[in-house]
Amino acid sequence: MIELYAFATPNSVKVPIALEEMGLSYDLKPINIRQGEQKAADFLALNPNGKVPVLVDGALVLTESAAILVHLAEKTGRLLPRDGMDRARVFEQLFFHASALSPAFGNAGFFKRLAAEPQPLAEARFTAEANRVLDRIDALLGERRFVAGDDFTIADIAHFGWLWRREFPGMTLDGRPNLVRWFDTVAARPAVRRAIARVEAVIPQAA
Amino acid sequence: MIELYAFATPNSVKVPIALEEMGLSYDLKPINIRQGEQKAADFLALNPNGKVPVLVDGALVLTESAAILVHLAEKTGRLLPRDGMDRARVFEQLFFHASALSPAFGNAGFFKRLAAEPQPLAEARFTAEANRVLDRIDALLGERRFVAGDDFTIADIAHFGWLWRREFPGMTLDGRPNLVRWFDTVAARPAVRRAIARVEAVIPQAA
Repeated sequence: MIELYAFATPNSVKVPIALEEMGLSYDLKPINIRQGEQKAADFLALNPNGKVPVLVDGALVLTESAAILVHLAEKTGRLLPRDGMDRARVFEQLFFHASALSPAFGNAGFFKRLAAEPQPLAEARFTAEANRVLDRIDALLGERRFVAGDDFTIADIAHFGWLWRREFPGMTLDGRPNLVRWFDTVAARPAVRRAIARVEAVIPQAA
Repeated sequence: MIELYAFATPNSVKVPIALEEMGLSYDLKPINIRQGEQKAADFLALNPNGKVPVLVDGALVLTESAAILVHLAEKTGRLLPRDGMDRARVFEQLFFHASALSPAFGNAGFFKRLAAEPQPLAEARFTAEANRVLDRIDALLGERRFVAGDDFTIADIAHFGWLWRREFPGMTLDGRPNLVRWFDTVAARPAVRRAIARVEAVIPQAA
């Protein structure tokens, strides 16, 4: 049985979505990051980087949500084209997510909500970058049904994680009609709804 | 002939290193980011995200340096294990690079050198994160010869790009002996030296 150490975070939720989409059963082990459990000794033994999610699949202990998505896609042959330009587009979006969207959203939220003192230029920098990234994805979705082409892939799962948690950095889909259409389509998928229900259920349980 | 639009930047240099390692010939097209050429209309037609590097390989126009590394590795069957745990470790490091090292280095450098006004908490945040990431990689390299295992892979190329430009965020290898050993090993590879010589040669030429 696959084990998934996760919480109801933007990066965590990607993995149960992929598992549900692929029809893989898994044991969800809650790590309550609000109580700092990701920095506890037993969790650091699993992931010395101190972050969720972590997947345990037989002998493989794997960190980094997007690396987990690639592993599961290649294991099942699902949600990642085998070759050609369609495959390259999925990796392009996975790395655009990891290097642009994710740090912009994370840092915009940090400087808006968590910083000990106001850092107005930092807040403005990351908010502007988060908006620029959303405009870019909205433009892409004017040309494609999903973010990497006409089919739903693990790249959609990656972007969906942070879009689902867009209130943290104060981002909105307003004025981005293609992004609204895409978000509603992804959010309505039965596997996505099941995954969100599972990660949300661990919040009170772990509190 | 493969075309590579690039400059002597941390992300750009990864691609010529991979091309040289794989024995692929390429036409290097300099995009002088110091003069803002990545925001010019003809470049934005190639990459609306306004960043180098961009690879043109036949009909494929591909952005995101790590996605380009994956494409080239799968095209040639080089520097990326075909399956199993060794392959998963390469993706884990590629995404750790994209989501942790790269934004920490880029933002530490920005707030140290380029911000219009001092943002001391922001500078401290990204400097601390960059140091944490380097300590993590130094620890990994105490257990492995290269960052994803005993063989040199595209994950080493990804980390090398920013380590080569570590003066921008003011980072050092001092006190990290495993990282020093790894950096010197990678920097001494003939393909790496040829790639650096090629990207450095475009600086005066494009200036």
